[in-house]
Amino acid sequence: MPQIKIGKLAMLVASLTPEELEPFSAQLKDVEYCQGKAGSMNMEKVISAVETAAKRNSIISDELYRETHALYHAILEALEGVMRGQIGAGNMMRTVGLRFAVVRGTPYEHFDEGEWIAVAFYGTIGAPVKGLEHETFGLGINHIG
Amino acid sequence: MPQIKIGKLAMLVASLTPEELEPFSAQLKDVEYCQGKAGSMNMEKVISAVETAAKRNSIISDELYRETHALYHAILEALEGVMRGQIGAGNMMRTVGLRFAVVRGTPYEHFDEGEWIAVAFYGTIGAPVKGLEHETFGLGINHIG
Amino acid sequence: MPQIKIGKLAMLVASLTPEELEPFSAQLKDVEYCQGKAGSMNMEKVISAVETAAKRNSIISDELYRETHALYHAILEALEGVMRGQIGAGNMMRTVGLRFAVVRGTPYEHFDEGEWIAVAFYGTIGAPVKGLEHETFGLGINHIG
Amino acid sequence: MPQIKIGKLAMLVASLTPEELEPFSAQLKDVEYCQGKAGSMNMEKVISAVETAAKRNSIISDELYRETHALYHAILEALEGVMRGQIGAGNMMRTVGLRFAVVRGTPYEHFDEGEWIAVAFYGTIGAPVKGLEHETFGLGINHIG
Amino acid sequence: MPQIKIGKLAMLVASLTPEELEPFSAQLKDVEYCQGKAGSMNMEKVISAVETAAKRNSIISDELYRETHALYHAILEALEGVMRGQIGAGNMMRTVGLRFAVVRGTPYEHFDEGEWIAVAFYGTIGAPVKGLEHETFGLGINHIG
Amino acid sequence: MPQIKIGKLAMLVASLTPEELEPFSAQLKDVEYCQGKAGSMNMEKVISAVETAAKRNSIISDELYRETHALYHAILEALEGVMRGQIGAGNMMRTVGLRFAVVRGTPYEHFDEGEWIAVAFYGTIGAPVKGLEHETFGLGINHIG
Repeated sequence: MPQIKIGKLAMLVASLTPEELEPFSAQLKDVEYCQGKAGSMNMEKVISAVETAAKRNSIISDELYRETHALYHAILEALEGVMRGQIGAGNMMRTVGLRFAVVRGTPYEHFDEGEWIAVAFYGTIGAPVKGLEHETFGLGINHIG
Repeated sequence: MPQIKIGKLAMLVASLTPEELEPFSAQLKDVEYCQGKAGSMNMEKVISAVETAAKRNSIISDELYRETHALYHAILEALEGVMRGQIGAGNMMRTVGLRFAVVRGTPYEHFDEGEWIAVAFYGTIGAPVKGLEHETFGLGINHIG
Repeated sequence: MPQIKIGKLAMLVASLTPEELEPFSAQLKDVEYCQGKAGSMNMEKVISAVETAAKRNSIISDELYRETHALYHAILEALEGVMRGQIGAGNMMRTVGLRFAVVRGTPYEHFDEGEWIAVAFYGTIGAPVKGLEHETFGLGINHIG
Repeated sequence: MPQIKIGKLAMLVASLTPEELEPFSAQLKDVEYCQGKAGSMNMEKVISAVETAAKRNSIISDELYRETHALYHAILEALEGVMRGQIGAGNMMRTVGLRFAVVRGTPYEHFDEGEWIAVAFYGTIGAPVKGLEHETFGLGINHIG
Repeated sequence: MPQIKIGKLAMLVASLTPEELEPFSAQLKDVEYCQGKAGSMNMEKVISAVETAAKRNSIISDELYRETHALYHAILEALEGVMRGQIGAGNMMRTVGLRFAVVRGTPYEHFDEGEWIAVAFYGTIGAPVKGLEHETFGLGINHIG
Repeated sequence: MPQIKIGKLAMLVASLTPEELEPFSAQLKDVEYCQGKAGSMNMEKVISAVETAAKRNSIISDELYRETHALYHAILEALEGVMRGQIGAGNMMRTVGLRFAVVRGTPYEHFDEGEWIAVAFYGTIGAPVKGLEHETFGLGINHIG
C-alpha cells in the first residue's frame, strides 16, 4: 500500500461533508487538492469541468500537454467506475449532482517515484426519466510530472 | 440524493481504518453491513469471497437465488470500477490486499422502495510483475429483497 | 432451467407474427406482458419507449423507483445483445423497426424467488447509410418486485 | 426487413422444443441449419463446439479460412448477447445447458447479396455458485461465401 | 503469415509520406487501394467518409450490401484501435487530421480464400481541449466479395 | 502532429523487414527503441515479454514503478487495437508470431513536454483452431519519465 493514499483522500474529499472531512485535515496537508461539481452527464463537459478546476487551482500546469494527458487518463479511469460499463452511457444517463476531487501528491517513499494524481467522482446517477437515481463512485490514478 | 447513503457507507467501511471509521458509527447503525478481504484477482474467487461473507453475516439470504442475483450484479458493477475497462483484466492483474464491504439498507424515504445493497472494493492493484501497484476502488448498487 | 421461461416468451412476443404466436398463447397466460416499437436507435428514446409501454400496461409500477431500476437494467442487458459491443454504437447506428416485449412472471417453483422481468428486442439494425441492415436480437432478465 | 429471416430462424431452432418448432418447418426448408449443445462457459470450447457442428453438418466448408472467419465473427457477436458486457465473463460464469443453432441462407431478394450466416445461443447462465441461473440469449449475423 | 499483407500495406498507405511510400510501390501493385482524410471524430462522419472513398474509388461495389457490410465491420475494428476502449469516446474526442487507407486484395495462396479488405487509420487524437493530441492508429481486416 | 513520430516509428519497427526499415534509419536515430516477439496470446506473458525487453534494453528503468506504470498502460492501449474489443479475447485467441516494438523519445518541440513512450504490436491473430489467422496491429502511447 502506498504511504500517502491519494486515491482514498480523493474519495473522501469528493463524498464527505466539511464536518466529516475534518478528522482527515492532517492527512490532506501532505497533498495538493481541489474539488468541484459537474451538473451534467455530457462527457465532454464533465472532463472540461475537472480540467478547468485542476488548472485554476494550480493542481496541474495549464501549459504542459503531458500534465493534461496524465489528468485526462485519470479522469477516464474514474468515469469507468461511474459508468460501470454501460453501453452508450454518455447518451442515456442523466445525473443530479456529481462532485469531484483532484488530489496530487507523492504516494511512494522512494523519492524518484515522484508525483501522482488521483481523480474521484461521487454523486447520483439516473436513467433519463427524472427522479430515478442512486449513488455512484469512480476513482482513477496516474503518474504525473 | 438518497436519505441513507449506503454507497458512501460501503466506501468508508472498505477504505477507512477502525479509528477513522469511528465518527461514522451512528450512520452505520441505520444499515446492516459486513466486510472482508480478497487476496487474489481471480474473478471467481473474489465473487465467492464477497458472497460467502454476505451470507455468513446474514446480509443476504443463502436460500434465495434472487438475493444472490442482486448481490452478484452489485459485485459486477463494483468490479468495473476496480478494473476500469482493462481488457482481459482477470487474466493479467495481480492484487495485494483488496478489502470489500457489503451494506444493506433502505436508502429512500418512501417505504415501498424497500431494501437496496451496496458493494465497495478498496485496495491496491498491480501488473503481474511484483511490487507494482496503486490504489483502486469500485462501487456497485442494486435493489434487493 | 426455470419452470416458466419469461426470456423465451419475451423473444417470441418480440419477433413472431400474431399467427406464429398462436401456439404459445397458453404459455403466455402464465405471465404479464406487453409489446411495442422503437423507431430510432437513440438510446434515450429506446429506453423511454420501453419504460413508457411497461408502465402504461401496468407491467411495472410507475410510482416505485425500484421497479424502474429493475426494468432499466434488464433493458441495458438486452441492448448489449442488440449492439454486440460496437463502440459508440448509439452514435453511428440507424435502425428500421425495432420491436420489443416486456414479460413479468414468476419463473421459479420456490415461492420466495418471487417476480422477475424479461426484456427482448428484435428488428433490423444498420449502418448510417440507408438500406444496409440485418436482423438483431437482445434479451435481458432481472429480479423485480 | 430481409425476406428470409435467418436470425429469427436461428433463435427458434436454438430455443424451441421439437413440437414448438413444427409450425416453422416450411420456413426452415429455405435454409441450411444445424444445432448443438455447449455444456461449459469456457469460450474456447463454446467456439469449437459451434465450429465443429457447422463443419460436420456441412453448413460451412472446413477447407476455407474465409468461411470459418465469417462463422467465427458471427459466434463472437452472439456471445456478446449471452455475456451482456460482463467483465472477465469467461472466467466467472458457469452455465448449464447452452443450446446453439447455425443457419445459412440467402436473406435478400437481390441475387448478388449471396449467402449469410446466423448463430444463436439460448440457455441458462449462472454465477460460479451452483444453482443460480437464469435464461440468456445471443444472436450474431455475418455475410459468408 | 498471409502472402500479401493487406493490413501492413493499409498501415503504410495511411501513415507514410509519398516519398516514404515509394519503396513499397511494387507491393502496392498487387492490391487495389485508396486513401482519404476524416477531419472530425464524429463516428457517423468517419464511417461515411471511408465508405464514400471506397465506393468512389471502386474498392467496393456501391450496389451490394454485403460489400458495405464487410467494409463496415473492418472500419469498426480499426476504430477500436483508434479509440482504445475509451468510454463514450465518440462524444469526448476531438481529432486533428485522421488519415485512412482501404486496401482490397487476395492475401492467401489458396485461390478459394478469395478477396479480403483492410482499413487503417493514422493521425492524432486529442481531448476536447484544443492542442492536446498524440498519435493514434487502428487496423481492421475482413473477408469480402 | 508531433515533431518526432514515436508511434509511427514503433509501427514501422514492429512490422517492416530490416531491408524495408533501412530508409527510416535516420529518423530512428532520434529515439531509443527495442523490439521483440511474443509467441502466445496469454496476456500476462505478452505484457511480461514487452516489459522484460524494455528493461533489458534500458528503454525504461527497472527500478522505478512510475516507468513500468507508464509502459504498462501503453501496452494495454496497444492490446486494445490487437484485440478489437473481442470478449474474453485472452481466453479464446491463439496467435502465431506477434512482434512488438517499444520506442521512447521526445515528440514535442517544447522541452518541458519531456519523454513519451510508444508500444506497437504487429502479427497474425487467429481463432483457437489452428491455421486460421490474419494480420493484427495495435499502438499505445503514454507520457513517461
